[in-house]
Amino acid sequence: MEFTAQQIADFLGGEIQGNPSVKVHTFSKIEEGKAGTLSFLSNPKYNHYIYESKASIILVNTDFQAEKEVKATIIRVEDAYQALALLMTMVEKANPKKVGVSTLAFVSPTAIIGENVYIAPFSYIGDKVIIGNNSMLHPHTCIQDGVQLGENVVLFSGVTIYNNCVIGNNCILHSGVVIGSDGFGFAPTEDGSYKKIPQMGIVEIEDNVEIGSNTTIDRATLGSTYIRKGVKLDNLIQIGHNVEIGTNTVIASQSGISGSTKLGKQCIIAGQVGLAGHILIADGTILGAQAGVPNSIKIPDQAFQGTPAIPVSNFRRSTVVYKNLPELQKTIFELQKQIKELEIRINSIS
Amino acid sequence: MEFTAQQIADFLGGEIQGNPSVKVHTFSKIEEGKAGTLSFLSNPKYNHYIYESKASIILVNTDFQAEKEVKATIIRVEDAYQALALLMTMVEKANPKKVGVSTLAFVSPTAIIGENVYIAPFSYIGDKVIIGNNSMLHPHTCIQDGVQLGENVVLFSGVTIYNNCVIGNNCILHSGVVIGSDGFGFAPTEDGSYKKIPQMGIVEIEDNVEIGSNTTIDRATLGSTYIRKGVKLDNLIQIGHNVEIGTNTVIASQSGISGSTKLGKQCIIAGQVGLAGHILIADGTILGAQAGVPNSIKIPDQAFQGTPAIPVSNFRRSTVVYKNLPELQKTIFELQKQIKELEIRINSIS
Amino acid sequence: MEFTAQQIADFLGGEIQGNPSVKVHTFSKIEEGKAGTLSFLSNPKYNHYIYESKASIILVNTDFQAEKEVKATIIRVEDAYQALALLMTMVEKANPKKVGVSTLAFVSPTAIIGENVYIAPFSYIGDKVIIGNNSMLHPHTCIQDGVQLGENVVLFSGVTIYNNCVIGNNCILHSGVVIGSDGFGFAPTEDGSYKKIPQMGIVEIEDNVEIGSNTTIDRATLGSTYIRKGVKLDNLIQIGHNVEIGTNTVIASQSGISGSTKLGKQCIIAGQVGLAGHILIADGTILGAQAGVPNSIKIPDQAFQGTPAIPVSNFRRSTVVYKNLPELQKTIFELQKQIKELEIRINSIS
Repeated sequence: MEFTAQQIADFLGGEIQGNPSVKVHTFSKIEEGKAGTLSFLSNPKYNHYIYESKASIILVNTDFQAEKEVKATIIRVEDAYQALALLMTMVEKANPKKVGVSTLAFVSPTAIIGENVYIAPFSYIGDKVIIGNNSMLHPHTCIQDGVQLGENVVLFSGVTIYNNCVIGNNCILHSGVVIGSDGFGFAPTEDGSYKKIPQMGIVEIEDNVEIGSNTTIDRATLGSTYIRKGVKLDNLIQIGHNVEIGTNTVIASQSGISGSTKLGKQCIIAGQVGLAGHILIADGTILGAQAGVPNSIKIPDQAFQGTPAIPVSNFRRSTVVYKNLPELQKTIFELQKQIKELEIRINSIS
Repeated sequence: MEFTAQQIADFLGGEIQGNPSVKVHTFSKIEEGKAGTLSFLSNPKYNHYIYESKASIILVNTDFQAEKEVKATIIRVEDAYQALALLMTMVEKANPKKVGVSTLAFVSPTAIIGENVYIAPFSYIGDKVIIGNNSMLHPHTCIQDGVQLGENVVLFSGVTIYNNCVIGNNCILHSGVVIGSDGFGFAPTEDGSYKKIPQMGIVEIEDNVEIGSNTTIDRATLGSTYIRKGVKLDNLIQIGHNVEIGTNTVIASQSGISGSTKLGKQCIIAGQVGLAGHILIADGTILGAQAGVPNSIKIPDQAFQGTPAIPVSNFRRSTVVYKNLPELQKTIFELQKQIKELEIRINSIS
Repeated sequence: MEFTAQQIADFLGGEIQGNPSVKVHTFSKIEEGKAGTLSFLSNPKYNHYIYESKASIILVNTDFQAEKEVKATIIRVEDAYQALALLMTMVEKANPKKVGVSTLAFVSPTAIIGENVYIAPFSYIGDKVIIGNNSMLHPHTCIQDGVQLGENVVLFSGVTIYNNCVIGNNCILHSGVVIGSDGFGFAPTEDGSYKKIPQMGIVEIEDNVEIGSNTTIDRATLGSTYIRKGVKLDNLIQIGHNVEIGTNTVIASQSGISGSTKLGKQCIIAGQVGLAGHILIADGTILGAQAGVPNSIKIPDQAFQGTPAIPVSNFRRSTVVYKNLPELQKTIFELQKQIKELEIRINSIS
């Protein structure tokens, strides 16, 4: 498929600068742009690339000011990144989708499979599983007994969902995701060994959730571990048993949420963050990379970093002093000396 | 199955307060209790829920003192959480177990399969593998040549065990666990590239070990990586080559143990902790969340936190000062000024 | 197969001390050495084991000085660890390799499979996939449409490669590795929800790369995520979209590289390190365990640690003061008191 700059500008409601009849058939990064491709410029860090880019069309924000001649045809739109995303989504939707249940899959006779579902070779669908319309299960997915999947769900290869867990509509689970494995619950005994506490709850994932590869979400001891609507989890994240992640909260890679902790809505959690168990995190909380949070955060919309986490402005100023600690210590020792000398002098005077 | 409060109290040796003939058929969390369910109260943080809970029966510790009327039937037992665990374990054991070798599995003719074993569709059992009685292998497990599994072992879907590794009795390995992948061993060469050191050892896992989803345990370069009896590992943990984890040690999610390090018995390692390679950690050591341990810990039963890890009480006091570092630095600069002023005054006097 | 000390010394160009006709048939660790095994001593930490070791032959560095009698036959070589690696590599190569396409695998009729390839049961090979000669795909590997694998590639069980990604020659990917899952790209919308940015790029992995178990590498939004020649990644690492890892860089377990960051050549990244997005790391940079790097590092061959990362010598001195912070604070408060007292005394004098 090819499109002209004019067609794209009309579709996006953008303003053309340059040749309106130039054609593109795919996308490119601005620094790797080639003839026949459409690129974009959003982050000002990359501004200098636009003058050299060989892309045929470049989307820019309305406020972009060229400092030199730009060879490409420019289309000005309100938000270049969003416009790009819109075009990419269109192209992606135009791709043919796989449909049908492979004869190389195992599907329990008691499972209920919706319409236009794709079940790839070597998928395992257990007893009484329900799979909604238009869902896609790639190879080696394992859906244990009693699981419910909504509509338009995509499970990439190697996703495992333990028995009785519930997944909403429009969810995307990437390869290696494990939903519903046992929470880490053991009771110490007198001889020093630990006794397993059966984990009899489930995981409930609401609509429009995306979960990155090899992330693990444990089932509740009793009741449910909840992942609310619109949550986005990156790769290699750990969600403990009985945790609740609030609506539209996003968590970056390798963060871990300990058991029974509840995160509010619209939180932004950076990478490698750790949260203690049994705490509450207020709506809109922002946690910087590698933060460690031992206690509840009660005031919404605040930012924290460090271990233990402190307000982010405090953290930044403390890190500066931390770097200078050796010099500061020296200063203190010198002050001690100076005071001693002053004392001696005063003693000699009085 | 339904049970009366009287039957449950008799079984647990507990004391009833309320209606002994009320019946329950499942479990619930105290804050989500419904009629017909049994709940429990153990952590005093949750005490306030007992007065509103709609659970029919609530297990409490003998020392629980009600401050208001409790509508549910109460059963007092020595340890409410342990009593609950006992009941849940009973119910779980009453569930029918899957048995039999699926015709959709691949089983090498030289493998030896015990009695009452379950091998799910799409499992792969290599040459000369031995699987003990009553073990369960869920779909997509991959047991490479020469592996030995004990009795009552449960492997959830997608578990991989590389060749010749040994797993004891009563072990539970959750989905995505990898046992016996190559240790990270490379020798630098003169041109800057690295040469692989073949990893010819194995992993030995003793009895009663549980391993959380997507945790990885590398095989030894020579000899064995040892996971001793009763060890409990949470999700997404990394165990390097030639590591030894001592009996009944528990490790929380996302911690990593570098190569050749030996942990003692009965250690408690929190989440996101990192241990350097080639060090020894004494029995009973406790490491707080996100600790980084560069050196051996020789005295048993001590608690540490921080990077590098220091005694936990020291860590707590240092973090308080860390937060105040900007103010402390200001104080020091003021002291410098004050001393200079004093000096000038003394100079003027003497 | 058995070899004499004389044969091994001749092969390695080493110097024998002891009985040249003693035979070995396998390898052992020096502390677990048995008759009939060959062991080695490289790290001086382990020197004391050589006097007790029951290994028949022990490789040592030329500069090793025995302090007591050594019972084993010693072979002196320039680098005992490299010599061991050479012998182990030989033995490993002598092992018979699996070859052939299992009838229990799914192979698209449009896939092109090279010579001497092994495709295990339950592998999935999508449309237009190309697999180079001598490659091995263990069970449950999932190679999506359009993927290209080089020659001598080994994919352990459960590896997933998303569509159109490219893997070079001689690469080893351990179990559970995910290549090409979607980058974490979402645009915020006005109602607080996030809109997915389609990830239309790929991952390109060059020759001689090894990737540890359950590591995840995300596909680029546009263009490629690059893993350059000779890179070695440990287990459970996260590589974000559009990242580039430079030639011969090694990264230890559980580290994470955020989107669009570029690491230079010959870097050494320890475990649990985190790098922010959109930064550049100079060639030869060394990052200590658990470092957090928020900004670009421009000078090559420097070592850093801490969060935020500072020069490693600075970090070490700061950690010492950090430990003493409570005492230091006390000292400062005492200085304040002393100064006040001095002031009073001066006031009374003047």
